[in-house]
Amino acid sequence: MDCMPCFVRQALSAVRMVTDDTEAAGQILRDVLWEMSQMSTEQSPVVMAQRIHRLVRRLGGDVDPYSDAKDRCNRMALGLYPKAARLVRESSRPLETALRMAIAGNAIDLGPYQQVDLEQIERAITHAADSPLNGDFAGFAEAAARAGSILYLADNAGEIVFDRLLIEQLDPRRIVLAVRGAPVLNDARRPDAAIAGLTDLVEVIDNGSDAPGTLIDDCSDEFVRRFNQADMVIAKGQGNYESLNDADRDLFLLLQAKCPVIADKLKCPVGSLVVKRSGCGSGTESDQIVRDPSKASTGVTATPLEIPS
Amino acid sequence: MDCMPCFVRQALSAVRMVTDDTEAAGQILRDVLWEMSQMSTEQSPVVMAQRIHRLVRRLGGDVDPYSDAKDRCNRMALGLYPKAARLVRESSRPLETALRMAIAGNAIDLGPYQQVDLEQIERAITHAADSPLNGDFAGFAEAAARAGSILYLADNAGEIVFDRLLIEQLDPRRIVLAVRGAPVLNDARRPDAAIAGLTDLVEVIDNGSDAPGTLIDDCSDEFVRRFNQADMVIAKGQGNYESLNDADRDLFLLLQAKCPVIADKLKCPVGSLVVKRSGCGSGTESDQIVRDPSKASTGVTATPLEIPS
Repeated sequence: MDCMPCFVRQALSAVRMVTDDTEAAGQILRDVLWEMSQMSTEQSPVVMAQRIHRLVRRLGGDVDPYSDAKDRCNRMALGLYPKAARLVRESSRPLETALRMAIAGNAIDLGPYQQVDLEQIERAITHAADSPLNGDFAGFAEAAARAGSILYLADNAGEIVFDRLLIEQLDPRRIVLAVRGAPVLNDARRPDAAIAGLTDLVEVIDNGSDAPGTLIDDCSDEFVRRFNQADMVIAKGQGNYESLNDADRDLFLLLQAKCPVIADKLKCPVGSLVVKRSGCGSGTESDQIVRDPSKASTGVTATPLEIPS
Repeated sequence: MDCMPCFVRQALSAVRMVTDDTEAAGQILRDVLWEMSQMSTEQSPVVMAQRIHRLVRRLGGDVDPYSDAKDRCNRMALGLYPKAARLVRESSRPLETALRMAIAGNAIDLGPYQQVDLEQIERAITHAADSPLNGDFAGFAEAAARAGSILYLADNAGEIVFDRLLIEQLDPRRIVLAVRGAPVLNDARRPDAAIAGLTDLVEVIDNGSDAPGTLIDDCSDEFVRRFNQADMVIAKGQGNYESLNDADRDLFLLLQAKCPVIADKLKCPVGSLVVKRSGCGSGTESDQIVRDPSKASTGVTATPLEIPS
């Protein structure tokens, strides 16, 4: 129920991106309110958001409302990438710093935020560089050191540019990157991965779904196979946290707690950086083969990312 | 349309005040969303809010959801009243300072805010004491100096305690105070006027309506007669601004611009203190009889307000 006001605000933002006509916008918004009146408030916020954004796209003429917004997010992130990359390069613990930058990028989220600007993301980088990391980073580092294969679930356009820093530290050769299968909010898709230079660096798949999270039942068979078989799953953002926290496998959720609902569930203040281990593997020893731990934190040298002037 | 997310948040707050049962709350919220889906987004936000809050009250079992909240608002205001009263007493311009305190009290508004606490209102007092006053205070003072009769439209419980300071400065003998005719949000009604000591000081009437503003067509005949006949009308708050800004008579709207929608309309930053002259009399000379101006700023000595320990 607490998500309802936010969903109406998101719908209003999306509606304004598909039409300048006030009357048409009002009609789409009323249709969204009607759709919401038919929804159980017991279901996952990710399912509700999926239905709402799907409806806005359909009523708006099957367009992607966030197409321009995603371009702006990517450009903004590419502008700040050199700063984040330098922090990683100069760090004595580059894996941790890269993970912090990947979480900083999670601020580029047009779900909880109506807009995101350069100063806000620059502050997110500074904040992420030296604020407490909630959760189990040591567990993350150990799992990363042991995993033969890692499935990395991206969250948003723009954010995915910062994900590249973490992916480089984790050794791209063992990583498969998954993006959304269809447009929803400013969630990342294949073109966003390409702009971040990731399509040249790792295998990129999509999950076959238009949910702003990962609803396993809604994903393609191929995605589900990869999800089940990966030694380690890393999932970014609030939507993935909400949809995967109770998944049937162990995984690591990396996110910023951006709204009171999520912060409350995670028992941390709004704005916290979170490394949440969850699922059936959390707290138990797995019997995966130990890889050479040195590989987990050095990464490989990849094609330098082109930064727009 | 911009008000829709806020209405859903208000409805959710109100629903939670009428029931602890999650399932029942979810059903009321869905009914509110359905009602909103039937509303024209072209109509006044005050009309929409009236319909939404009326529905929550009816579905909640004909209770006043904000009953306890209004008690808390009044107690909080009484606790801060001595500070505000001292500022007026020690001021070289007591009419202006009392008006500033009345506008400070307008922060006690459970429409735009989900909750209001003591520190927030204390900050509002300090802010109101020395921040720029937007609009036409000189015009207000002149009109007050000339008016034989003043109709003062209160806004919220708690706020009405601070209104008393301005009413005292304006000479209570010529003032009629109007409150809402039925419960809506934390809007002030007769018991709130009594708690502020105003029923002993001025004539108190109600407007016969449950709108969180003043919709003239929805008010009692007696209220409309008073509204039309008063030499001067002073109306507090955003709801009165939205419903009376285009009224058929001149009036003075005293408010804090608390949300981006209102701030945008008033062309001022959020948080601004506003004295807005509006209606057909604004900018023109009226032919009202000039009263003794000294009476307008001295006020009468009234029964001291009892402050709870």
